[in-house]
Amino acid sequence: MSWIHSIKWDKDGLVPVIAQDFRTHKILMFAWMNQEALELTQKNKKAFYWSRSRKKIWKKGEESGYLQHIHEIRLDCDGDVILLKIEQIDNIACHTGRETCFYRKLDDKDMWVTDYPVVKEPKDIYKK
Amino acid sequence: MSWIHSIKWDKDGLVPVIAQDFRTHKILMFAWMNQEALELTQKNKKAFYWSRSRKKIWKKGEESGYLQHIHEIRLDCDGDVILLKIEQIDNIACHTGRETCFYRKLDDKDMWVTDYPVVKEPKDIYKK
Repeated sequence: MSWIHSIKWDKDGLVPVIAQDFRTHKILMFAWMNQEALELTQKNKKAFYWSRSRKKIWKKGEESGYLQHIHEIRLDCDGDVILLKIEQIDNIACHTGRETCFYRKLDDKDMWVTDYPVVKEPKDIYKK
Repeated sequence: MSWIHSIKWDKDGLVPVIAQDFRTHKILMFAWMNQEALELTQKNKKAFYWSRSRKKIWKKGEESGYLQHIHEIRLDCDGDVILLKIEQIDNIACHTGRETCFYRKLDDKDMWVTDYPVVKEPKDIYKK
């Protein structure tokens, strides 16, 4: 049986995907894949995701240049969540220009506090 | 505005949740929360999740004893994914008796290889 058949897709044909820095072990982002995106990811050793809003596959970094090189593809016990261990080019995974999308934490006053700086302004990342 | 109102729930009133060991930074599991589960988690500093199959809230470890103490609650850029930094009691997060649910990796022969051992047999964890 091919490895791809171990995946249990949801009713929309998708699986959640967690991208983790292979070196720092930080969680960088969360996204979705359909079968084609996962096959492209495995074949090209670069992360491809499924955009639920645009209803199309996107190669991470296709616009920004901030590609994700795949170091490891992992699968959870139920076969319905993927964990990618990646090398994040230029250490910017978030569209806000930060290292990680998870840049806010709940502090002891129950406020969301941003504790990751903007490394590069989005207008400078996405300028045409 | 209360912190809970920053969360963008999906059409089923849920958000995906990633649980990461606060010390080793390993990804231990992935689950879902509704608003009540997140509020219980924040209030009690223990992880509560929403079971989509049983359609009810469950306290992680309620049967096994393998509770998750909350060290940090983080939110992603879109406000629709939660990252928990936790202390996993007894270092078993997976219902298979393993440290993590992500115990399989795709090897260079495109086979899923289990590289985490069963620490405790499920029959010994869940016996009544």
